[in-house]
Amino acid sequence: MKAAYFVKPGKMEVREFESPTIEKTTDAIIRIVRACVCGSDLWWYRGISARPSGVVGHEAIGVIEEVGAEVKNFKTGDFVIVPFTHGCGTCKVCLAGFEANCPNATEGVNGGYQGEIYRAINADGALVKIPGQPSDYTDEQLDSLTTLADVMPTGYHAAFSANVKEGDIVVVFGDGAVGLCAIIAAKLRGASQIIAMSRHEKNATLAREFGATAVLAERGKEAIEKLLELTGGVGVDVALECVGTKESIESAFQVVRAGGHIGRVGVPHDVVYNEWIDSLFWKNITLGGGVASVTTHDKALLLDKVLDGSINPGKVFTAEFSLDEIQAAYEAMDKRTAIKSLLKIGG
Amino acid sequence: MKAAYFVKPGKMEVREFESPTIEKTTDAIIRIVRACVCGSDLWWYRGISARPSGVVGHEAIGVIEEVGAEVKNFKTGDFVIVPFTHGCGTCKVCLAGFEANCPNATEGVNGGYQGEIYRAINADGALVKIPGQPSDYTDEQLDSLTTLADVMPTGYHAAFSANVKEGDIVVVFGDGAVGLCAIIAAKLRGASQIIAMSRHEKNATLAREFGATAVLAERGKEAIEKLLELTGGVGVDVALECVGTKESIESAFQVVRAGGHIGRVGVPHDVVYNEWIDSLFWKNITLGGGVASVTTHDKALLLDKVLDGSINPGKVFTAEFSLDEIQAAYEAMDKRTAIKSLLKIGG
Repeated sequence: MKAAYFVKPGKMEVREFESPTIEKTTDAIIRIVRACVCGSDLWWYRGISARPSGVVGHEAIGVIEEVGAEVKNFKTGDFVIVPFTHGCGTCKVCLAGFEANCPNATEGVNGGYQGEIYRAINADGALVKIPGQPSDYTDEQLDSLTTLADVMPTGYHAAFSANVKEGDIVVVFGDGAVGLCAIIAAKLRGASQIIAMSRHEKNATLAREFGATAVLAERGKEAIEKLLELTGGVGVDVALECVGTKESIESAFQVVRAGGHIGRVGVPHDVVYNEWIDSLFWKNITLGGGVASVTTHDKALLLDKVLDGSINPGKVFTAEFSLDEIQAAYEAMDKRTAIKSLLKIGG
Repeated sequence: MKAAYFVKPGKMEVREFESPTIEKTTDAIIRIVRACVCGSDLWWYRGISARPSGVVGHEAIGVIEEVGAEVKNFKTGDFVIVPFTHGCGTCKVCLAGFEANCPNATEGVNGGYQGEIYRAINADGALVKIPGQPSDYTDEQLDSLTTLADVMPTGYHAAFSANVKEGDIVVVFGDGAVGLCAIIAAKLRGASQIIAMSRHEKNATLAREFGATAVLAERGKEAIEKLLELTGGVGVDVALECVGTKESIESAFQVVRAGGHIGRVGVPHDVVYNEWIDSLFWKNITLGGGVASVTTHDKALLLDKVLDGSINPGKVFTAEFSLDEIQAAYEAMDKRTAIKSLLKIGG
């Protein structure tokens, strides 16, 4: 079988591998239908974070080819979302809805979804059943189903962690695929105003289509001033932090009103917190977030919303590629010519 | 009228002052019935925090002597809780339930409750009506009503900010009056296990009486190990941080399970957060808390619970004094011979 291979920063190849097989009785072997490239893949593609050479990718949908002897919830032929999380589904942490932190998901989580065949661990707990077969869906529907492996539940996790509720004024930092999905999430949870921070026309247009009621191009100090001005000096009820940089996190800390919430899903990089965390105390601001509860959010809400057409997160895929075009798929995201690159792999 | 006067660290006196009068149309003049000494008063009494000489105290109950022309909700003769917060009750922040952060409460908030007569600002928004008159209540009931000015709603704020819910396993750091009230709050909200951290017999006994299901005397690394052991290595659902020291906050950060909550009401002192805040992200732990919503929590729940006798937070007063004994009242708390010192001032 073929799979994408990370050679070194800036260089992806497609290589031939032996197909994975069942190793544990809780595994499932999946024929990948669609996969994609994640913004977080750019950290190592750009050489900013270290990663050894090897197979990569952590978002896909596919059809089960074989299941281990202990798998009860799935059978050969089932069409499934393959989340980047691998929760067992039975421990206290999974039952509390935080499968990204499952203590029983410690092996086999280093990617390989950007390929033809993938071995999923903890199948019963982690995978999410999609009704029917891939051929029952349009291309647009398959795109949206693919986002349920990561970006859509991650955007939702920001809104969930910040407890976005009916009538809230929400600002979203980050106009990449996750930030755009956070806009969908804020709207789903009833936010009355959603302010997107974006200076890229394509992203801003999609932000408005997804539910943003205003788009601001300002950054840093100017962004903070503008947001305070827009809220009569009080600040927003909620900030969704979908970037993870020092500037973005510090901005989020400064624009939320007393008693408001910050939900963060951007992996924090080089942030110095000391001067900010005490300010959260003095302003009664709640800081939540982390790695997304993909399976939980998909099952609770998001799969239904994609199936009934009320949300269309698949629009974040503005470019599509075959597996053989893997280098181009990464380059498109690296150079920002695509918001997110889709990989059409199997039928 | 007489009032307590802070001379210098370690020295309190009672001095004679002119009685305060209505200065703004939204003021109320209150004859203090009971006041008390707060754990946070010890910061300046001990000379750890700087504070100029002057009148002090920020917790009381009393009877209204006069109201300003614009006060609509109260009249002369009303018996009231006088919270340490002074929210206007009408701005967006107050309406959201965070009156400690009210932008319209910027003057007259520096104490003076430890005296015979007190001028309260923003009377309509801040004060809480108690049915009847002081003479309708027993000493024990008056004690509990006095805690509603600060310690009981502050303890409740920790549990509220951490979203303690039915069945939660909760640990409470701090066995002073606020920590003890946080135990009452966790029980009110349905926690199934409440672990109190205490090494003082009198406090531990009261912790058990208030609802603690276990009391641990360990601190630091030993406390963390013990709490993880008690929860099968998973960690507690919620930590209520009622101290504010580096050791206490760092312990709270380490004993909460993935996806759990920390509610903090201890004013943070000299805490270095960097190594901890990223760990909150990776464990999906939510950090909330701040200065308590006294009026909101009293009106929503706590006053009813005191009036119907289902909670008895007044038991935190283990010593009582007249206003003339103010030095002894502070010394009792400073030397830990009292958990909290009550001041019986008016009839």
